[in-house]
Amino acid sequence: MSETVFTKIIRGEIPCHRVFEDERVFAFLDIAPLAPGHVLVVPKEPAPTLDALSEESAAAIGRVLPRIARAVVAVTGTRDFNVLQNNGAAAHQAVPHVHFHIIPKPAGGGLGIDWPSGRLDGDEGRRLAAEISARLATG
Amino acid sequence: MSETVFTKIIRGEIPCHRVFEDERVFAFLDIAPLAPGHVLVVPKEPAPTLDALSEESAAAIGRVLPRIARAVVAVTGTRDFNVLQNNGAAAHQAVPHVHFHIIPKPAGGGLGIDWPSGRLDGDEGRRLAAEISARLATG
Repeated sequence: MSETVFTKIIRGEIPCHRVFEDERVFAFLDIAPLAPGHVLVVPKEPAPTLDALSEESAAAIGRVLPRIARAVVAVTGTRDFNVLQNNGAAAHQAVPHVHFHIIPKPAGGGLGIDWPSGRLDGDEGRRLAAEISARLATG
Repeated sequence: MSETVFTKIIRGEIPCHRVFEDERVFAFLDIAPLAPGHVLVVPKEPAPTLDALSEESAAAIGRVLPRIARAVVAVTGTRDFNVLQNNGAAAHQAVPHVHFHIIPKPAGGGLGIDWPSGRLDGDEGRRLAAEISARLATG
Protein backbone atom coordinates (compact mmCIF):
# COMPACT_ATOMS: atom_id res chain seq x y z
CA MET A 1 0.00 0.00 0.00
CA SER A 2 1.13 3.51 -0.73
CA GLU A 3 2.08 5.79 2.14
CA THR A 4 1.12 9.43 1.79
CA VAL A 5 1.06 12.58 3.86
CA PHE A 6 -2.30 11.40 5.24
CA THR A 7 -0.73 8.32 6.81
CA LYS A 8 1.80 10.59 8.51
CA ILE A 9 -1.01 12.87 9.71
CA ILE A 10 -2.97 9.90 11.08
CA ARG A 11 0.15 8.69 12.94
CA GLY A 12 0.72 12.18 14.36
CA GLU A 13 4.04 12.63 12.54
CA ILE A 14 2.65 15.69 10.76
CA PRO A 15 0.44 18.07 12.74
CA CYS A 16 -3.18 18.72 11.82
CA HIS A 17 -6.35 20.22 13.22
CA ARG A 18 -8.09 16.94 14.13
CA VAL A 19 -11.86 16.95 14.59
CA PHE A 20 -12.68 13.21 14.91
CA GLU A 21 -11.04 9.81 15.27
CA ASP A 22 -12.27 6.27 15.81
CA GLU A 23 -10.87 2.81 15.09
CA ARG A 24 -11.10 3.13 11.31
CA VAL A 25 -11.65 6.82 10.54
CA PHE A 26 -9.67 10.06 11.00
CA ALA A 27 -11.02 13.56 10.23
CA PHE A 28 -9.26 16.92 10.21
CA LEU A 29 -9.47 20.40 8.71
CA ASP A 30 -8.24 20.80 5.13
CA ILE A 31 -5.17 23.05 5.23
CA ALA A 32 -6.24 24.62 1.90
CA PRO A 33 -9.98 25.06 2.51
CA LEU A 34 -12.57 25.97 -0.09
CA ALA A 35 -14.62 27.51 2.73
CA PRO A 36 -14.38 27.77 6.53
CA GLY A 37 -15.06 24.36 8.09
CA HIS A 38 -13.77 22.34 5.10
CA VAL A 39 -13.06 18.90 6.61
CA LEU A 40 -11.33 15.80 5.24
CA VAL A 41 -12.66 12.43 6.38
CA VAL A 42 -10.19 9.63 5.66
CA PRO A 43 -9.95 5.92 6.36
CA LYS A 44 -6.93 4.81 8.38
CA GLU A 45 -6.61 2.09 5.75
CA PRO A 46 -4.28 3.59 3.11
CA ALA A 47 -6.24 2.70 -0.04
CA PRO A 48 -5.39 5.03 -2.94
CA THR A 49 -8.91 5.15 -4.42
CA LEU A 50 -12.43 4.26 -3.29
CA ASP A 51 -12.69 1.21 -5.52
CA ALA A 52 -9.67 -0.24 -3.66
CA LEU A 53 -11.05 0.44 -0.16
CA SER A 54 -12.39 -2.38 2.06
CA GLU A 55 -16.12 -2.52 2.72
CA GLU A 56 -15.43 -2.21 6.44
CA SER A 57 -13.55 1.08 6.08
CA ALA A 58 -16.06 2.41 3.57
CA ALA A 59 -18.97 1.59 5.89
CA ALA A 60 -17.17 3.20 8.83
CA ILE A 61 -16.70 6.42 6.87
CA GLY A 62 -20.30 6.40 5.66
CA ARG A 63 -21.52 5.93 9.22
CA VAL A 64 -19.77 9.03 10.59
CA LEU A 65 -20.42 11.41 7.67
CA PRO A 66 -23.85 12.57 8.95
CA ARG A 67 -22.48 13.28 12.45
CA ILE A 68 -19.47 15.19 11.17
CA ALA A 69 -21.64 17.10 8.68
CA ARG A 70 -24.03 18.11 11.48
CA ALA A 71 -21.12 19.40 13.55
CA VAL A 72 -19.70 21.37 10.61
CA VAL A 73 -23.12 22.90 9.85
CA ALA A 74 -23.66 23.79 13.50
CA VAL A 75 -20.25 25.41 13.96
CA THR A 76 -20.02 27.27 10.64
CA GLY A 77 -23.68 28.24 10.48
CA THR A 78 -23.57 27.33 6.78
CA ARG A 79 -26.54 25.10 6.03
CA ASP A 80 -25.64 23.86 2.53
CA PHE A 81 -22.60 21.72 1.81
CA ASN A 82 -21.01 19.31 -0.67
CA VAL A 83 -19.41 15.95 0.00
CA LEU A 84 -16.83 15.14 -2.64
CA GLN A 85 -14.47 12.21 -3.06
CA ASN A 86 -12.10 12.27 -6.04
CA ASN A 87 -10.37 9.28 -7.62
CA GLY A 88 -7.46 9.77 -10.01
CA ALA A 89 -5.55 12.84 -11.15
CA ALA A 90 -8.03 13.55 -13.97
CA ALA A 91 -10.78 13.65 -11.34
CA HIS A 92 -8.89 16.22 -9.24
CA GLN A 93 -7.39 13.82 -6.67
CA ALA A 94 -4.17 15.28 -5.26
CA VAL A 95 -3.26 12.80 -2.49
CA PRO A 96 -3.49 9.07 -3.35
CA HIS A 97 -5.19 8.06 -0.08
CA VAL A 98 -9.01 8.01 -0.08
CA HIS A 99 -10.50 11.20 1.37
CA PHE A 100 -14.03 12.56 1.55
CA HIS A 101 -14.25 16.35 1.52
CA ILE A 102 -17.07 17.96 3.50
CA ILE A 103 -17.20 21.46 2.00
CA PRO A 104 -19.56 24.12 3.37
CA LYS A 105 -21.26 26.17 0.63
CA PRO A 106 -21.53 29.76 1.83
CA ALA A 107 -22.79 32.44 -0.56
CA GLY A 108 -20.08 33.10 -3.11
CA GLY A 109 -17.73 30.42 -1.75
CA GLY A 110 -17.16 26.70 -1.49
CA LEU A 111 -16.87 24.17 -4.29
CA GLY A 112 -17.41 25.36 -7.83
CA ILE A 113 -19.43 22.87 -9.86
CA ASP A 114 -19.94 22.73 -13.59
CA TRP A 115 -22.71 20.33 -14.60
CA PRO A 116 -22.72 19.65 -18.36
CA SER A 117 -25.38 16.96 -18.19
CA GLY A 118 -26.59 14.99 -21.17
CA ARG A 119 -29.58 12.75 -21.69
CA LEU A 120 -29.53 8.99 -21.17
CA ASP A 121 -30.54 7.07 -24.27
CA GLY A 122 -32.90 4.18 -23.46
CA ASP A 123 -30.98 1.48 -25.29
CA GLU A 124 -27.66 2.67 -23.90
CA GLY A 125 -29.20 2.78 -20.40
CA ARG A 126 -30.46 -0.79 -20.67
CA ARG A 127 -27.09 -2.02 -21.87
CA LEU A 128 -25.06 -0.17 -19.21
CA ALA A 129 -27.43 -1.12 -16.38
CA ALA A 130 -27.36 -4.77 -17.41
CA GLU A 131 -23.57 -4.84 -17.55
CA ILE A 132 -23.09 -3.00 -14.23
CA SER A 133 -25.71 -5.20 -12.52
CA ALA A 134 -24.00 -8.31 -13.84
CA ARG A 135 -20.63 -7.16 -12.49
CA LEU A 136 -22.20 -6.42 -9.10
CA ALA A 137 -23.91 -9.82 -8.98
CA THR A 138 -20.55 -11.56 -9.33
CA GLY A 139 -18.83 -9.37 -6.74
CA MET B 1 -40.36 12.83 5.68
CA SER B 2 -40.54 14.30 2.22
CA GLU B 3 -41.47 12.09 -0.69
CA THR B 4 -39.65 12.74 -3.92
CA VAL B 5 -39.27 11.20 -7.35
CA PHE B 6 -36.60 8.93 -5.83
CA THR B 7 -39.11 7.31 -3.47
CA LYS B 8 -41.32 6.59 -6.47
CA ILE B 9 -38.34 5.13 -8.35
CA ILE B 10 -37.42 2.92 -5.38
CA ARG B 11 -41.02 1.68 -5.18
CA GLY B 12 -41.04 0.94 -8.92
CA GLU B 13 -43.75 3.53 -9.63
CA ILE B 14 -41.38 5.38 -11.96
CA PRO B 15 -39.11 3.31 -14.21
CA CYS B 16 -35.34 3.47 -13.96
CA HIS B 17 -32.24 1.61 -15.06
CA ARG B 18 -31.50 -0.14 -11.76
CA VAL B 19 -27.99 -1.45 -11.12
CA PHE B 20 -28.12 -2.49 -7.45
CA GLU B 21 -30.52 -2.95 -4.54
CA ASP B 22 -30.27 -4.27 -0.99
CA GLU B 23 -32.25 -3.76 2.20
CA ARG B 24 -31.23 -0.12 2.66
CA VAL B 25 -29.73 1.02 -0.65
CA PHE B 26 -30.96 1.50 -4.23
CA ALA B 27 -28.74 2.45 -7.18
CA PHE B 28 -29.63 3.37 -10.76
CA LEU B 29 -28.35 5.27 -13.77
CA ASP B 30 -28.76 9.04 -13.72
CA ILE B 31 -31.20 9.99 -16.49
CA ALA B 32 -29.17 13.18 -17.14
CA PRO B 33 -25.63 11.81 -16.97
CA LEU B 34 -22.44 13.86 -16.86
CA ALA B 35 -20.69 10.88 -18.48
CA PRO B 36 -21.58 7.32 -19.52
CA GLY B 37 -22.02 5.17 -16.40
CA HIS B 38 -23.11 8.05 -14.13
CA VAL B 39 -24.87 6.25 -11.24
CA LEU B 40 -26.97 7.51 -8.33
CA VAL B 41 -26.68 5.62 -5.05
CA VAL B 42 -29.55 6.47 -2.69
CA PRO B 43 -30.75 5.31 0.71
CA LYS B 44 -34.26 3.89 0.81
CA GLU B 45 -34.71 6.11 3.86
CA PRO B 46 -36.08 9.40 2.48
CA ALA B 47 -33.79 11.85 4.32
CA PRO B 48 -33.53 15.17 2.48
CA THR B 49 -29.85 15.81 3.29
CA LEU B 50 -26.92 13.80 4.62
CA ASP B 51 -26.93 15.44 8.04
CA ALA B 52 -30.50 14.12 8.49
CA LEU B 53 -29.69 10.54 7.43
CA SER B 54 -29.49 7.70 9.98
CA GLU B 55 -26.07 6.19 10.71
CA GLU B 56 -27.38 2.80 9.56
CA SER B 57 -28.37 4.06 6.11
CA ALA B 58 -25.19 6.10 5.79
CA ALA B 59 -23.04 3.08 6.68
CA ALA B 60 -24.95 0.89 4.23
CA ILE B 61 -24.28 3.35 1.41
CA GLY B 62 -20.62 3.69 2.36
CA ARG B 63 -20.25 -0.08 2.37
CA VAL B 64 -21.47 -0.56 -1.22
CA LEU B 65 -19.76 2.45 -2.82
CA PRO B 66 -16.46 0.61 -3.52
CA ARG B 67 -18.28 -2.35 -5.14
CA ILE B 68 -20.46 -0.14 -7.31
CA ALA B 69 -17.49 2.03 -8.26
CA ARG B 70 -15.51 -1.05 -9.30
CA ALA B 71 -18.39 -2.19 -11.50
CA VAL B 72 -18.73 1.25 -13.11
CA VAL B 73 -14.98 1.42 -13.78
CA ALA B 74 -14.97 -2.10 -15.24
CA VAL B 75 -17.93 -1.52 -17.54
CA THR B 76 -17.10 1.99 -18.73
CA GLY B 77 -13.34 1.46 -18.92
CA THR B 78 -12.95 4.92 -17.37
CA ARG B 79 -10.48 4.64 -14.51
CA ASP B 80 -10.96 8.02 -12.82
CA PHE B 81 -14.22 9.10 -11.20
CA ASN B 82 -15.79 11.51 -8.72
CA VAL B 83 -18.22 10.73 -5.92
CA LEU B 84 -20.36 13.75 -5.13
CA GLN B 85 -23.20 14.26 -2.69
CA ASN B 86 -24.88 17.69 -2.62
CA ASN B 87 -26.90 19.18 0.23
CA GLY B 88 -29.12 22.20 -0.35
CA ALA B 89 -30.02 24.18 -3.46
CA ALA B 90 -26.96 26.43 -3.13
CA ALA B 91 -24.81 23.28 -3.19
CA HIS B 92 -26.42 22.07 -6.43
CA GLN B 93 -28.90 19.59 -4.89
CA ALA B 94 -31.91 19.18 -7.19
CA VAL B 95 -33.88 16.36 -5.51
CA PRO B 96 -34.34 16.59 -1.72
CA HIS B 97 -33.57 12.91 -1.06
CA VAL B 98 -29.93 12.03 -0.27
CA HIS B 99 -28.06 10.76 -3.33
CA PHE B 100 -24.42 9.98 -3.99
CA HIS B 101 -23.34 10.51 -7.59
CA ILE B 102 -20.66 8.19 -8.99
CA ILE B 103 -19.46 10.12 -12.04
CA PRO B 104 -16.86 8.65 -14.40
CA LYS B 105 -14.26 11.20 -15.53
CA PRO B 106 -13.40 10.49 -19.16
CA ALA B 107 -11.13 12.89 -21.05
CA GLY B 108 -13.09 16.09 -21.71
CA GLY B 109 -16.19 14.91 -19.85
CA GLY B 110 -17.64 14.26 -16.42
CA LEU B 111 -17.95 16.63 -13.50
CA GLY B 112 -16.49 20.10 -13.86
CA ILE B 113 -14.74 21.23 -10.69
CA ASP B 114 -13.57 24.71 -9.74
CA TRP B 115 -11.29 24.68 -6.71
CA PRO B 116 -10.70 28.21 -5.34
CA SER B 117 -8.81 27.04 -2.26
CA GLY B 118 -7.53 29.35 0.44
CA ARG B 119 -5.09 28.82 3.27
CA LEU B 120 -6.08 27.79 6.77
CA ASP B 121 -4.97 30.27 9.41
CA GLY B 122 -3.52 28.53 12.48
CA ASP B 123 -5.64 30.33 15.08
CA GLU B 124 -8.79 29.93 13.02
CA GLY B 125 -7.97 26.24 12.52
CA ARG B 126 -7.52 25.66 16.26
CA ARG B 127 -10.80 27.41 17.03
CA LEU B 128 -12.82 25.59 14.35
CA ALA B 129 -11.32 22.18 15.18
CA ALA B 130 -12.01 22.66 18.89
CA GLU B 131 -15.63 23.64 18.24
CA ILE B 132 -16.29 20.83 15.75
CA SER B 133 -14.62 18.27 18.04
CA ALA B 134 -16.70 19.47 20.96
CA ARG B 135 -19.92 19.09 18.94
CA LEU B 136 -18.90 15.59 17.89
CA ALA B 137 -18.04 14.59 21.44
CA THR B 138 -21.58 15.41 22.55
CA GLY B 139 -23.23 13.63 19.61
